[in-house]
Amino acid sequence: MTNTTIELIHQHGSVRHYKTDPLPREMIETIVAAGQRAATSSNLQMFSVVALTDLEQRKQMQAYCGGQKHISQAPVFLAWVADLSRLERICQARGYKQQAGMVENFLLAAVDAAIAAQNAGLAAESMGLGFCYIGAIRNKPRNVIRLLKLPRLTFPVVGMTLGWPVKAPMIRPRLPLETILHWDTYDTTGEAEQLEQYDREMIETGIYRGRQVKADDPIPAEQYGWTEHSARRAAQVMRPHLREVLLEMGFELK
Amino acid sequence: MTNTTIELIHQHGSVRHYKTDPLPREMIETIVAAGQRAATSSNLQMFSVVALTDLEQRKQMQAYCGGQKHISQAPVFLAWVADLSRLERICQARGYKQQAGMVENFLLAAVDAAIAAQNAGLAAESMGLGFCYIGAIRNKPRNVIRLLKLPRLTFPVVGMTLGWPVKAPMIRPRLPLETILHWDTYDTTGEAEQLEQYDREMIETGIYRGRQVKADDPIPAEQYGWTEHSARRAAQVMRPHLREVLLEMGFELK
Repeated sequence: MTNTTIELIHQHGSVRHYKTDPLPREMIETIVAAGQRAATSSNLQMFSVVALTDLEQRKQMQAYCGGQKHISQAPVFLAWVADLSRLERICQARGYKQQAGMVENFLLAAVDAAIAAQNAGLAAESMGLGFCYIGAIRNKPRNVIRLLKLPRLTFPVVGMTLGWPVKAPMIRPRLPLETILHWDTYDTTGEAEQLEQYDREMIETGIYRGRQVKADDPIPAEQYGWTEHSARRAAQVMRPHLREVLLEMGFELK
Repeated sequence: MTNTTIELIHQHGSVRHYKTDPLPREMIETIVAAGQRAATSSNLQMFSVVALTDLEQRKQMQAYCGGQKHISQAPVFLAWVADLSRLERICQARGYKQQAGMVENFLLAAVDAAIAAQNAGLAAESMGLGFCYIGAIRNKPRNVIRLLKLPRLTFPVVGMTLGWPVKAPMIRPRLPLETILHWDTYDTTGEAEQLEQYDREMIETGIYRGRQVKADDPIPAEQYGWTEHSARRAAQVMRPHLREVLLEMGFELK
């Protein structure tokens, strides 16, 4: 059961090597407009996009996002921004008081931004472009907020590099479908065996070899699979500053 | 600049009237597998899907989601679940201690779930199906969690009804592109005029007439547009229980 769109979806891989050729502004607009067509909670459209094409600005962004080189190499960087500031301006103009203090409000806006970004990404890929999500936009959110001049009640949820890929990206195997798809109720029967199978598959790709596993690692490369790699990631404290920055931006997460 | 995928994206509208014909299990698997192909932060795949096909279970879900009739009408309901419990099991098995207490961790998993859901939704639409996101899955999350037997460190981010549409859905106009797309920095120049234009456009669709505007409303239907409607929504306290439930599920949002 397949078709053009499903084939496109299955060809996705994150692109981290781009030609430096610029994208016509019209193309960027087509991509973001595709993002706008995604569903949005109660049609509230709680997201904005800031597009960077200027090299100096992209270099700045790169510095704030862990130095990932493709941020200055790709001709376009899109910041996908959870945005309740637009509704704040509207509420003020019309004499209402926005209630933006709940976790729910931030979640609504973040999900709106994420699904719009995914639509945009697929639209880009359908035109032969590649993209890569940049979660590292949350590494130094205060700097990013200053660079993009983001107002109160906005937050950069995820970034995206965009451009012509130098080569087709690597497509990583995913977990077996039955590991993530549950029928009727959440059920982990068979999970351990499925994870072992996936570990073997991921070790075979050679993804972790050299790049991730150090020579003196207690786990040899031929046993270092997705579960070991992911457990180590999950054991790290991730971006502990986020709550404070969100609070500064007006998201109380009550 | 268009193609099959971009055309598909532009045909999206939320479907709330379905034929009751069941979907073959293989079709549901194809759809969720398309979701799996979406990018996922560090390939951690922090989401799960619980698929409901049983009518009684969908009726239960409907009761928990504000009674939306299409939840029992559509043959399939998918719950898109932010899932750090899989990593928790992996960490325990491999002797690591997961750090899941940051806002960042919940955001990572919620965004993973959201972009996977969007890929799946588009895949469904590419096969002629329709879908509708169900944010109301967060209305009574404790009941939903019990119904789906969700373990600690999971949370149902968004639901989705899925099936054959009775008719083509309404496609709502969106905000002018320039309202949400900013170049170089966030810039609200011209926003007031753009919102007025959008208000006129939305009033013309007749969307709010009758359904939303009461007879005794101080704002007459011919002036009740998107800004008024959205300001009223934004002034309501939304799902204030969320933080507490997230905490119960192990998401401390520190």
